[in-house]
Amino acid sequence: MSDTTSNRMWGGRFAAGPDAIMEAINASIGFDKRMAAQDIAGSRAHAAMLAATGILSDSDAEAIREGLLTVLSEIEGGTFQFSTALEDIHMNVEARLKEVIGAPAGRLHTGRSRNDQVATDFRLWVRDQLDAAEGGLQALMQALLAQAEVGADWVMPGFTHLQTAQPVTWGHHMMAYVEMFGRDLSRVRDARVRMNESPLGAAALAGTGFPIDRHMTAQALGFDRPMANSLDAVSARDFALEFLSVASISAMHLSRFAEELVIWSSAQFRFVTLSDRFSTGSSIMPQKKNPDAAELIRAKIGRIFGANVALMMVMKGLPLAYSKDMQEDKEQVFDAADNWMLALAAMEGMVRDMTANVAVLEKAAAHGFSTATDLADWLVRETGLPFRDAHHVTGSLVALAEKKGCDLPDLTLDEMQAVHGRIDASVYDVLGVHNSVRSRTSYGGTAPARVREQVAAWKERLA
Amino acid sequence: MSDTTSNRMWGGRFAAGPDAIMEAINASIGFDKRMAAQDIAGSRAHAAMLAATGILSDSDAEAIREGLLTVLSEIEGGTFQFSTALEDIHMNVEARLKEVIGAPAGRLHTGRSRNDQVATDFRLWVRDQLDAAEGGLQALMQALLAQAEVGADWVMPGFTHLQTAQPVTWGHHMMAYVEMFGRDLSRVRDARVRMNESPLGAAALAGTGFPIDRHMTAQALGFDRPMANSLDAVSARDFALEFLSVASISAMHLSRFAEELVIWSSAQFRFVTLSDRFSTGSSIMPQKKNPDAAELIRAKIGRIFGANVALMMVMKGLPLAYSKDMQEDKEQVFDAADNWMLALAAMEGMVRDMTANVAVLEKAAAHGFSTATDLADWLVRETGLPFRDAHHVTGSLVALAEKKGCDLPDLTLDEMQAVHGRIDASVYDVLGVHNSVRSRTSYGGTAPARVREQVAAWKERLA
Amino acid sequence: MSDTTSNRMWGGRFAAGPDAIMEAINASIGFDKRMAAQDIAGSRAHAAMLAATGILSDSDAEAIREGLLTVLSEIEGGTFQFSTALEDIHMNVEARLKEVIGAPAGRLHTGRSRNDQVATDFRLWVRDQLDAAEGGLQALMQALLAQAEVGADWVMPGFTHLQTAQPVTWGHHMMAYVEMFGRDLSRVRDARVRMNESPLGAAALAGTGFPIDRHMTAQALGFDRPMANSLDAVSARDFALEFLSVASISAMHLSRFAEELVIWSSAQFRFVTLSDRFSTGSSIMPQKKNPDAAELIRAKIGRIFGANVALMMVMKGLPLAYSKDMQEDKEQVFDAADNWMLALAAMEGMVRDMTANVAVLEKAAAHGFSTATDLADWLVRETGLPFRDAHHVTGSLVALAEKKGCDLPDLTLDEMQAVHGRIDASVYDVLGVHNSVRSRTSYGGTAPARVREQVAAWKERLA
Amino acid sequence: MSDTTSNRMWGGRFAAGPDAIMEAINASIGFDKRMAAQDIAGSRAHAAMLAATGILSDSDAEAIREGLLTVLSEIEGGTFQFSTALEDIHMNVEARLKEVIGAPAGRLHTGRSRNDQVATDFRLWVRDQLDAAEGGLQALMQALLAQAEVGADWVMPGFTHLQTAQPVTWGHHMMAYVEMFGRDLSRVRDARVRMNESPLGAAALAGTGFPIDRHMTAQALGFDRPMANSLDAVSARDFALEFLSVASISAMHLSRFAEELVIWSSAQFRFVTLSDRFSTGSSIMPQKKNPDAAELIRAKIGRIFGANVALMMVMKGLPLAYSKDMQEDKEQVFDAADNWMLALAAMEGMVRDMTANVAVLEKAAAHGFSTATDLADWLVRETGLPFRDAHHVTGSLVALAEKKGCDLPDLTLDEMQAVHGRIDASVYDVLGVHNSVRSRTSYGGTAPARVREQVAAWKERLA
Repeated sequence: MSDTTSNRMWGGRFAAGPDAIMEAINASIGFDKRMAAQDIAGSRAHAAMLAATGILSDSDAEAIREGLLTVLSEIEGGTFQFSTALEDIHMNVEARLKEVIGAPAGRLHTGRSRNDQVATDFRLWVRDQLDAAEGGLQALMQALLAQAEVGADWVMPGFTHLQTAQPVTWGHHMMAYVEMFGRDLSRVRDARVRMNESPLGAAALAGTGFPIDRHMTAQALGFDRPMANSLDAVSARDFALEFLSVASISAMHLSRFAEELVIWSSAQFRFVTLSDRFSTGSSIMPQKKNPDAAELIRAKIGRIFGANVALMMVMKGLPLAYSKDMQEDKEQVFDAADNWMLALAAMEGMVRDMTANVAVLEKAAAHGFSTATDLADWLVRETGLPFRDAHHVTGSLVALAEKKGCDLPDLTLDEMQAVHGRIDASVYDVLGVHNSVRSRTSYGGTAPARVREQVAAWKERLA
Repeated sequence: MSDTTSNRMWGGRFAAGPDAIMEAINASIGFDKRMAAQDIAGSRAHAAMLAATGILSDSDAEAIREGLLTVLSEIEGGTFQFSTALEDIHMNVEARLKEVIGAPAGRLHTGRSRNDQVATDFRLWVRDQLDAAEGGLQALMQALLAQAEVGADWVMPGFTHLQTAQPVTWGHHMMAYVEMFGRDLSRVRDARVRMNESPLGAAALAGTGFPIDRHMTAQALGFDRPMANSLDAVSARDFALEFLSVASISAMHLSRFAEELVIWSSAQFRFVTLSDRFSTGSSIMPQKKNPDAAELIRAKIGRIFGANVALMMVMKGLPLAYSKDMQEDKEQVFDAADNWMLALAAMEGMVRDMTANVAVLEKAAAHGFSTATDLADWLVRETGLPFRDAHHVTGSLVALAEKKGCDLPDLTLDEMQAVHGRIDASVYDVLGVHNSVRSRTSYGGTAPARVREQVAAWKERLA
Repeated sequence: MSDTTSNRMWGGRFAAGPDAIMEAINASIGFDKRMAAQDIAGSRAHAAMLAATGILSDSDAEAIREGLLTVLSEIEGGTFQFSTALEDIHMNVEARLKEVIGAPAGRLHTGRSRNDQVATDFRLWVRDQLDAAEGGLQALMQALLAQAEVGADWVMPGFTHLQTAQPVTWGHHMMAYVEMFGRDLSRVRDARVRMNESPLGAAALAGTGFPIDRHMTAQALGFDRPMANSLDAVSARDFALEFLSVASISAMHLSRFAEELVIWSSAQFRFVTLSDRFSTGSSIMPQKKNPDAAELIRAKIGRIFGANVALMMVMKGLPLAYSKDMQEDKEQVFDAADNWMLALAAMEGMVRDMTANVAVLEKAAAHGFSTATDLADWLVRETGLPFRDAHHVTGSLVALAEKKGCDLPDLTLDEMQAVHGRIDASVYDVLGVHNSVRSRTSYGGTAPARVREQVAAWKERLA
Repeated sequence: MSDTTSNRMWGGRFAAGPDAIMEAINASIGFDKRMAAQDIAGSRAHAAMLAATGILSDSDAEAIREGLLTVLSEIEGGTFQFSTALEDIHMNVEARLKEVIGAPAGRLHTGRSRNDQVATDFRLWVRDQLDAAEGGLQALMQALLAQAEVGADWVMPGFTHLQTAQPVTWGHHMMAYVEMFGRDLSRVRDARVRMNESPLGAAALAGTGFPIDRHMTAQALGFDRPMANSLDAVSARDFALEFLSVASISAMHLSRFAEELVIWSSAQFRFVTLSDRFSTGSSIMPQKKNPDAAELIRAKIGRIFGANVALMMVMKGLPLAYSKDMQEDKEQVFDAADNWMLALAAMEGMVRDMTANVAVLEKAAAHGFSTATDLADWLVRETGLPFRDAHHVTGSLVALAEKKGCDLPDLTLDEMQAVHGRIDASVYDVLGVHNSVRSRTSYGGTAPARVREQVAAWKERLA
């Protein structure tokens, strides 16, 4: 979010005059300078192509390409003077290029326009972010896999409605998130394939009569192909919206895990201990370890999806081709990308550092008749009762235990047989939480053996 | 949107009592009955698998499978009595099955739960919608291709900022939307591949100890594979969010075209005439043809993306596994899917029926010095001026024409040469709009030949 | 959400033909029939005014007014045949009126149009909802006041970051929500005042030449005044957006409390027991009481705010005056209103029925050095230490207690004095949770006396 | 949107280590320094109160209050060194205060915490924005009033569905927006009244045992009263959401007008000429005047409402009291406020500068049988036909004119009487556009006299 426009300015804007207001609303250099490297890469590819196709002399092209490297080094070195009067990154770079190399700079803009130039820069920038997201998601998945591997057989309560339902394993819970982030990764890759097309050479909107070679610039910039319609090339922003959608869904997954970490680190749950590095303390309550990072990650969905809403509203109902409204695309994507990367990195760090309180987890798992379903399944399997009837018998046994103030494994065989005569001692095998999780060997189930299989499969996939 | 809950009920709800309120907020049968066919297909596959794995007798399985067909025919025939007391489609079907076939019905629910059942039903339903969207998008693209083919060389103004910029062809403009809807189609296909995994057999959340074969049910239901983590299987809703994201981006494209159609059919533009079938009239102003369908299509982005926001908010911060909040997923997706399909079909119909006013388009294209860029490009190409200098010369010529109250081709050669001595008579070749569009032969450009190539390529792709 | 458009229709829509598609996208009678009572009230007021101003004969006006009552009774009695061919509620009512009373029906539409008619109907409908929301909010506040009153001095942990921070009282926590819902109520009232203006008589968009009396119809319909600009009267939908904004903020407050109830009713917290009526059980785990109503209330923010997003997108960039896009306004508002009222009623019921587990709350409050701040304040007050220094001393004492495995009140005076010499026995007075909350008597503080003052003040305000 | 976090950082974050990541996600000083003036005003009021209540010595309070002025002047002078290690504006100011005045600085934080401090700062900041919005809205309304006054009787087409419907006056159209922005202004004022309560002294969440006087600090800071519940005081963010809702609705109004200006300045409409100051040109197409400011204003709804969505998502389901998620509130509000103020100022400037093309407007108004409704009304009034029958007669006359290729006033009396015998020559009085608009004298109608009345009324209200 911009901090550059002083609030005072608008409070006192009645004196500012229309020119200052127009400059403030119109200029983009304040944010699009983040695309300087992409802009220069695009221009260098364009210049090389102009020379290869004979539109530009080799010497002019070489001067341009070298001059652009000089400009880039000035920007990277922090010595470049950005000018708001020059509006945007494209004009800032070109104006400086002219200072550096003189007349040939004026030939660079042949066969292109700012419309295809900005579309190219922005695609390159977003593509970099997709690559960064791939890295961030993989690192997070590795951290989860490490937790899953070490705790493949730690027992914890599986919840529905935040109520204890059935015992599951720590590893199984971690692997659920590996699946989610794995699908996020798959969305990132699909988005990258779809958007990796070059708008360069679409010119203002209609293409050009110069004999340019769009395949050559596309290849030089790592695009798979040039975009096939010049009007579309300068008008399309669905690649940015898809980036924001993919980021938003991923932020949703992050928010769910973050919520669990906040709840799990409460005094009442104590399922995990977060590291000091991802918590903040209080100077007077040293026991207090606030899960700040988890809370902030939970909140990031707001910002990232807010950006998605913002750009969707901007694009609603815009006629072709370029409209100035579309200048609002970049800040949203920049902010969402920054915060998604930040949230992925913070979550990875938290997962690597966190400690499961194994004893607490196991005790909680055994609480609350969590193996009642196992008992019902046993009745179906061993006595042939229809499932609905087995449910009924189990209900009676749970009610009996509850009345006695004990848990299911504490009922005697006599007590059980009084409820249903065909129960025998082998029933106790299914009532312990370890036996329970071990028994759930259906594909995708919580049994440690199944979890270890999935860990191995994902490790190979991510190798 | 539900019309079933009378407003009076909540106005007078103080007398309604808690039970009525709980039933109103809790029951889902009012909407999830739309998944009846999917629910029954899932149960039939499950029963067959239970028999194949020996968990159920063949005769029980056969009775269940036949009974479910009976229930389905009752639902399709409109004779089924839905019960709110039975809460949802799953319980309604199972209860009726019990009436039809008796005791064996109680064995159907072995090795599964409502959590994996609803996830399976919903995935099947969404998958059907992705298939329907594929059909709808292709039909719309065919309609656009037909327009592009017939009007590959009709000249119209290309706009930026809704100001005339350069001449383009009608076919080129139509093909820009083919590209957009083509990417929508590609997103639909990616989403389908990603979501086509079976949750069935994940049971409540932990898998099951019964020796079920999840690969068998997955295959029977057309899924590519079972989901690999049972917690994830019952908790994941990213497939629904991805559906909504894809639909929203497509609705954005529809809104852009719809806006153009509204503007183009105004008295001031008169670029197109919409057919009576997709317009409404006025009893006293027979000339008035309101572009209602275009306006409604333009509006659908609100509803579809509103559903996306709604479900994203619901899923934010939900701990694993199932929470009742997730019951809010279906109505949003149902409504968005209905309206997306409707908008696609209405747009297809409008595109098929609409008539371009070719003479009006061409006249508008020639207006406003729209070939000034062609003149600048000619100067670069023929006289070797740097592009920035050629811009300057062109500006002087346009200023001259404006002063004289004529357009560029109306300037005499003498007048032109007074501005720049190296201009010769061949310049007039580039100042006509037909020559202009014909000259833009760069890949993806607006030249009729280029447009026809793209039409041919897309026809083959969609064949 | 609509269940009326069968999915099959659009799957097989290729055969449906343009006419069916246009009817499906265009007709509004499927939902706007909910405004029948408002439509008829508006028409009756209009007819009376037409007679009073001499535009209509008294006998015609009387026939119209009586005939409209007949139509209303048919609609309320369920015998009215709605027709999709007649598009909307206005035409359905007028067509039936003509059947009932004949020719005079044709004079009703003098000096108005459907544009001002629908705006009037919709305002009346929304106004009713604001009144219903006022009732719903007040009832919920009364339920909270009852809880606050009985538990004004029950001690519970006050959380920040879901970590125990300081002891607060149950009554204080309940009263925090009374403040929030009180502001929601205030927003409802402001919105009602602002929107209570009559569009009737604005006609199509420009007003009319008939000598109508808009003040008379405004008064008859309970509006404060006629709207002052006819273009605005038919174009404005900010009243609907404000309704959705107010509902969304209220839904946000509901979501916060619902989240607390879900967490508080977990096995790990056990702060409250929800009543059976607002929970669902499980046939095999009788101890399991799922907080379904709380979860559904938590989710409603998605649906309500989703409607806000939807309508905001629809209205973005619509030129004046009426556009067909605006037909999308009603379903969003209907659905949001229904669900807001439902959520308020369900929350009221839950609050009335829920039982605080007082002993559990108090024990949790005493846990975790929750009175450390009281100790620091004591040091400032009694020994004159600057607050930042007092923090430091307290930190040392907490560290000592933690090391000893006890809580602050368990430290001996010697141990305390070893850390800071000026501590004396009176310090123990501030270390108990009851003393702690009693001491916080600053205005708005958690002291029971303060809570009881606020309860009394609110009871009077709501009386 | 932040440009401070270099993308490189997260691309290379694998080396950054957890500490850098935590600092990046946790620190708020990068944006909350915008509240420095509010923070210092709050602290000065707090110190004065601590002295008045005897909690602090007068000399310490005086030292603190003077020292804070020094810090403020350093910040305003740009010499203050902000430190990320000190996390936020509160700690930055307090740390510097300690350097400036020494030990007494440590006594400032008595009886408050950062939780109530940040809530106070943020309310003061938002209150300033509401005041700025009031100024911005009034200035825009004045600009519209000036346009309305000068063009009270200029005739232009009134549109529905962007199709010519009836003639209206320029002044009437301008005044429609005065009504809209007038309601925005009323929402701003309501929001200000509701939010103008002081959280200061709520302390961490429970109030304090120090004998503070919250009414005194409230008064000193211009608040109407202290907030009545300390938990609510530190947890509430509905004031920020209401600000964003009000801004969003206002941005919706701006987007509608901006869309009209974009369409009106197209070559096809030419209804208005925007000033050069709020347009951008093209170096080669001097006639091209892109309505950039209008387009950017149209787009701002995305950003502003996106912020609303973002904060609504953040607040969804947050338990009391403070959670770190809430740190995400400020950047959204800052960005929305900046852009709202900017859009208001730019729109005001455009409205002041724009020129209506009166002749073009009038010609367009007379086009398309725009007075057909006047004819129908004449038939009702003068011949006693029911309105529905008059519609039918008018339809026949329009059809006749269309067939003849003329407009309604061009039909001869004979031709008219052939359609309906009771038409006489006085009918021509209602067929001209000036007569049409003059006749619409119903309250709120488009007649110039009515428009002038409304202009006068608003001028008085805004005086």
